[in-house]
Amino acid sequence: MPTLCRPHVAVPEHVVTAEETLDLARTLHAGHPQLELALRLIANTGVRTRHTLQSLEATLKHPGFEERNLLYEKEAKVRLPQVIETALGHAELTAPDIDMIIYVSCTGFMMPSMTAWLINSMGFRPETRQLPISQLGCAAGGAAVNRAHDFCTAYPQRNVLIVACEFCSLLYQPTDLGVGSLLSNGLFGDAMAAVVVRGQGGHGMRLEHNASHLVPDTEEWISYAVRDTGFHFQLDKRVPATMGVLAPAMRSMAAPHGWDIANLDFYLVHAGGPRILDDLGRHLDLPAQTFRHSRSTLTERGNIASAVIFDALDRLFAEGGTPHGGQGLIAGFGPGITAEMALGRWAAPHQLGSAAAEALASGPAPRTCPPLTVVGGRA
Amino acid sequence: MPTLCRPHVAVPEHVVTAEETLDLARTLHAGHPQLELALRLIANTGVRTRHTLQSLEATLKHPGFEERNLLYEKEAKVRLPQVIETALGHAELTAPDIDMIIYVSCTGFMMPSMTAWLINSMGFRPETRQLPISQLGCAAGGAAVNRAHDFCTAYPQRNVLIVACEFCSLLYQPTDLGVGSLLSNGLFGDAMAAVVVRGQGGHGMRLEHNASHLVPDTEEWISYAVRDTGFHFQLDKRVPATMGVLAPAMRSMAAPHGWDIANLDFYLVHAGGPRILDDLGRHLDLPAQTFRHSRSTLTERGNIASAVIFDALDRLFAEGGTPHGGQGLIAGFGPGITAEMALGRWAAPHQLGSAAAEALASGPAPRTCPPLTVVGGRA
Repeated sequence: MPTLCRPHVAVPEHVVTAEETLDLARTLHAGHPQLELALRLIANTGVRTRHTLQSLEATLKHPGFEERNLLYEKEAKVRLPQVIETALGHAELTAPDIDMIIYVSCTGFMMPSMTAWLINSMGFRPETRQLPISQLGCAAGGAAVNRAHDFCTAYPQRNVLIVACEFCSLLYQPTDLGVGSLLSNGLFGDAMAAVVVRGQGGHGMRLEHNASHLVPDTEEWISYAVRDTGFHFQLDKRVPATMGVLAPAMRSMAAPHGWDIANLDFYLVHAGGPRILDDLGRHLDLPAQTFRHSRSTLTERGNIASAVIFDALDRLFAEGGTPHGGQGLIAGFGPGITAEMALGRWAAPHQLGSAAAEALASGPAPRTCPPLTVVGGRA
Repeated sequence: MPTLCRPHVAVPEHVVTAEETLDLARTLHAGHPQLELALRLIANTGVRTRHTLQSLEATLKHPGFEERNLLYEKEAKVRLPQVIETALGHAELTAPDIDMIIYVSCTGFMMPSMTAWLINSMGFRPETRQLPISQLGCAAGGAAVNRAHDFCTAYPQRNVLIVACEFCSLLYQPTDLGVGSLLSNGLFGDAMAAVVVRGQGGHGMRLEHNASHLVPDTEEWISYAVRDTGFHFQLDKRVPATMGVLAPAMRSMAAPHGWDIANLDFYLVHAGGPRILDDLGRHLDLPAQTFRHSRSTLTERGNIASAVIFDALDRLFAEGGTPHGGQGLIAGFGPGITAEMALGRWAAPHQLGSAAAEALASGPAPRTCPPLTVVGGRA
């Protein structure tokens, strides 16, 4: 059964604190009629620090869409190989073991895709399938997991590398002055993530079921305006309430498989903003602690788009995972409004003999199995 | 076994003839030092007519990247539904039967992807998976077929809709004056295609094997420069000779399955230009007639990017297909240089009872089976 292994996540070296963000908003938008609202919204995100490719001064300049894309490409090529090597190491694989690369990024555009450069530069085989996805935004991390799951379901001996590269700071648009834009300027951060889905073996999250859900008639809620100055992120004020429709979609996805979405052992959910997590907790009657990994990502790194769920997963690994067989959810949310959701069970490293594999295939291991660090959500 | 059904292809109403193209090049580039070379290259493409969204006069204007993207979106939304409905009809399915939409297009950028609009507007289920691919260029048609094949291999009861929307004329860049750009201006055309891959049933091409191949260190050969004025297509003069490396890759892909790439019944190959087809014929020792469908597409519509292979497939259908069980290849080539290749057998409409399905699964039907119109390549 396909297994989502431990990701590696890296952030660039420049740090912007919440205080700097708020000060900057006060300075840049001193006369803005809705400044106080924007400041309140930014403060409410709970974001404490974000990382950016460039210094704050350079980030605030807009040298043009072309320059920004060139910077995107240059920085990604410098920074991604180490992230990918570490992720391959976590999966105990090397580049030639990979059969498909899914590259997700909505903050830079290249053709050929970065996948071609990675194959040429890092020792992947020329036969490696390339799947670049640029138009699913923050949902693309979940989509990548699900398409990797599908691929390994079709070909159980194969392995997929997922790379998420989001340099959100390159989308800063100084002329966008709506409240949604001001909020976004205080919300998003830069990050890179890589993770392997192994067709066989590996430890982490055994992927069992996946589903997608488009919330009808919400195309305008999260979108890019594509302009001569590049991509302009547009955030509608209805977005924070999205959970009202996504929580039922998650229930509907899980129920046919006999899973109770409100009673899982771990939840790795895209942290677009704090209300997404608050609302999901309320809808499913779960304590705040359940979403601690998503919330830590948001607090320490901001919304890092398609990389959020991998950062949250890495935090679950760092915590020791859940007991073997623990049930969990991973879900990315993004433009559409689209939710990409996966259900799976935790496969602990010392449980991976064939007996354990059988146990996984036939249902969760009894909770009395030798525990790792037992700190899972509701384990 | 997944079946690639009959596509529907549509072209916009404005027509540019080869003569108009050459006249225009002479007028616009009267003093160009390499005008004669450019004219010769354009004439050598063999393109007789191309279709464009707008009149020639409007096509030659560059109103900015933003305006062009808005036009892309508006025109696609007007034109695609009918193309898709017809393709669904060919597959004897309706929108709710579709489980995934793969949308390929390298000539416009939207977020949310067009997939969201299609789901909202055309009666697809909210659970329909969305897979928008914008960075594989002309190879994206082949990639879409292969990812649909993979998906239906994982979930044999599911169906995938592929939509290719290529408005290449929206990438005309009046300030690009290299010979490669002048040639491209005379080569590409606009078109839309839709086609269903059915997990079960249907007639057309039963998909058996697929593979991808990246030609090492050719990233610069076909690329976009992403500028404030939009995507600038860059074509290297080494591209026409690509077959020297792609033909062996095709052989290597087919051999492990016991297929002889030089002895198939049909070939549906991306017609990037005439030399691609000439060289492939020479490498595999095949008569020119073998590539008649690809060549007709090129002659009548120009290079319509990711839609080429679907146009060629539609022409094979129009011709009556091959005898039941006929072996064939479908291959898209694009930036990377990337080849996306699929091998499969022709499933004729009156052969689709369970006995025929068994015959398909066990190998090609004997050539004495009741023939359709027998006009396949080397049948």
